Amino acid sequence: MRQVAVLGIGQTKVDEHWDKALKELVLEAAFAALQEAGIDRPDTLYVGNMLSPIVSGQNHLGTLAADWLGLRGIEAAKVEAACGSGAAAFRAGLMAVASGEADSALVIGAEKMSDRAGHDVTAALATAADADYEVDQGVSFVGLNALVMRRYMHEYGWKHVDFAPFSINAHANALHNPFARLHEAITLEKFEKSSMVATPINLLDASPTGDGAAAMILVPAERVYSLPGRRKIIVAGSASATDRLAIHSRSDPLWLTAAYASAQKAYQMAGISPAEVDVFELHDAFSIMTALSLEACGFAERGQGPRLGLEGATAIGGKIPVCTRGGLKARGHPVGATGMYQLVEVVQQLRGECGKTQVEGARIGLAQNIGGSGATILTHVLQAV
Amino acid sequence: MRQVAVLGIGQTKVDEHWDKALKELVLEAAFAALQEAGIDRPDTLYVGNMLSPIVSGQNHLGTLAADWLGLRGIEAAKVEAACGSGAAAFRAGLMAVASGEADSALVIGAEKMSDRAGHDVTAALATAADADYEVDQGVSFVGLNALVMRRYMHEYGWKHVDFAPFSINAHANALHNPFARLHEAITLEKFEKSSMVATPINLLDASPTGDGAAAMILVPAERVYSLPGRRKIIVAGSASATDRLAIHSRSDPLWLTAAYASAQKAYQMAGISPAEVDVFELHDAFSIMTALSLEACGFAERGQGPRLGLEGATAIGGKIPVCTRGGLKARGHPVGATGMYQLVEVVQQLRGECGKTQVEGARIGLAQNIGGSGATILTHVLQAV
Repeated sequence: MRQVAVLGIGQTKVDEHWDKALKELVLEAAFAALQEAGIDRPDTLYVGNMLSPIVSGQNHLGTLAADWLGLRGIEAAKVEAACGSGAAAFRAGLMAVASGEADSALVIGAEKMSDRAGHDVTAALATAADADYEVDQGVSFVGLNALVMRRYMHEYGWKHVDFAPFSINAHANALHNPFARLHEAITLEKFEKSSMVATPINLLDASPTGDGAAAMILVPAERVYSLPGRRKIIVAGSASATDRLAIHSRSDPLWLTAAYASAQKAYQMAGISPAEVDVFELHDAFSIMTALSLEACGFAERGQGPRLGLEGATAIGGKIPVCTRGGLKARGHPVGATGMYQLVEVVQQLRGECGKTQVEGARIGLAQNIGGSGATILTHVLQAV
Repeated sequence: MRQVAVLGIGQTKVDEHWDKALKELVLEAAFAALQEAGIDRPDTLYVGNMLSPIVSGQNHLGTLAADWLGLRGIEAAKVEAACGSGAAAFRAGLMAVASGEADSALVIGAEKMSDRAGHDVTAALATAADADYEVDQGVSFVGLNALVMRRYMHEYGWKHVDFAPFSINAHANALHNPFARLHEAITLEKFEKSSMVATPINLLDASPTGDGAAAMILVPAERVYSLPGRRKIIVAGSASATDRLAIHSRSDPLWLTAAYASAQKAYQMAGISPAEVDVFELHDAFSIMTALSLEACGFAERGQGPRLGLEGATAIGGKIPVCTRGGLKARGHPVGATGMYQLVEVVQQLRGECGKTQVEGARIGLAQNIGGSGATILTHVLQAV
């Protein structure tokens, strides 16, 4: 398997894009990545997307993207793994280049959610759960996460306010990311007084959805070493793992087995330990997920995730900065696109392009994308070389 | 890129499976393939599926399949390329093994269409077309194919009845395939008197949809060479190409550019010419597509596809036998599963397991799967070694 590098990135602002179709978001992000890479025509194209068949009446999104990008003829497909679709598409592109089947891959994560009312989107998101045995019971994803968070607080003795630093950090970092959906600093007081969504999860524990697309060009690493200019970024580790789809089928609802498994495999492939990770873009769909991801990836003992937030370790300048561009919480969570946003943001960090939220000297970055309630988890290690 | 071989296959009958959920069809086909391969736990799993988000309210089908198969933990994702989803998933599995990322891949094509009324399914199938610029005009897939067929008949002087041999052959072959949906021989008279669907396409030009799943285990080729027993099948060629999504955007609606491009690439990879192909499982969603595929893949001159049917070349014993297990026309067309059925059927031919429709001495088989109206076309060459 040959080494793969990132040659270009692109992204749109995450927002309610009432004036743009899904395909226009795709084009904006993809053209930016192609232009930065100086590539007219990649060999293959993968789109990560979850909801377009339901929300936009659009399947066949890979070929639609190739068509509208003027790339008639190239290979194209869509990859779907619920909210893990973005990183799953990235991994497909990675294997296409690693296997030698393609010498360049355009990977795009794209989602348009604003075209439907909120309750329709909630129902569409529930298609990530087992339609026969979970969805029919009426539980939504925020409901499932609320059950997990309540159990976690009970088991380990944390109070709801102990999760506040995660959200405050995400909002603070998003202020400096022009592509983030929310540009609004929040305080501890605001966090505590925020509207309840599904107890104990309030509005500031939960990430906003949105419309957006993020893209990347992957090429064999040997092609970038000789290039002048910006730092070279290689994909040092990549792994995907699954768990039982339903939380009620797992022996322990408070441990992300698939996060642990995919992180261990990615670390091993990259030849690193968690201590060497400089920046971690994690999947903070809800604040409880930040704690669980930090624990499963080896940054905190079990049940001790919130401590990292309270001690400032997850802020810029801390031991393990997370959500440095706002995370799902404040950059926004356009579900099938999120995994690609995380990877693009890690590249920005490793290139040193993050201005006021730059992690100084960042050389190794981790991105972790989650589909469903921890059922599909993809972990990637990117490295500046 | 290392060579990849087929270690096991499985399939369900294509039918209206009122008593089985989508996941049960997945399990039936996958367990059969795993059992035949003698593998308990593959490294990765890809599901090709088009309609489950719309028809079954189910996304996240890769991980759902892994969960229900008892394969908790393994990598899993869904791949979608409209009716080309099956072969697109196969190609993802192929690259996972070829790249060295996985030492075994379970690939499944699965579709459940009977749970919705016919007009709902027609609308769901239309999501393969551009939602903004084709679907909104009200054209259905049979309507698009009818326009192409009429133009073809006009350009090249064929009569509707000249397409009859394709459908008669498919139905005749399906009689001997227990997994086929239709077990009913048809005559020329029956073909001519069949109900009109969208002129000139009548019911016997069109393939029936259905529910079904087909599966395959892929492993590095070095692993099969030393095995006793049945003939070894390797994936000798694999390619995917696209065209403009809408037929109205193409310079020539009567030429399958993506079929030509992907077939040429697959032939080159396998080091073969069309003359060496012993059996061809093509994508006869409508009889006109049989003609166009035969032409684009190098078996007939432009506009001369129907001649192969009329001369008996496409029947068992002919120069280029097609639809040897019934094709889409009579085996049935469970859309996202079809590509995997074709590949499974080619394996059966190369192993010599096809009884009365066995192509004697078949060593090289071609499978071609089409998404949309020729927009995404995947061509695979399998070879007995």
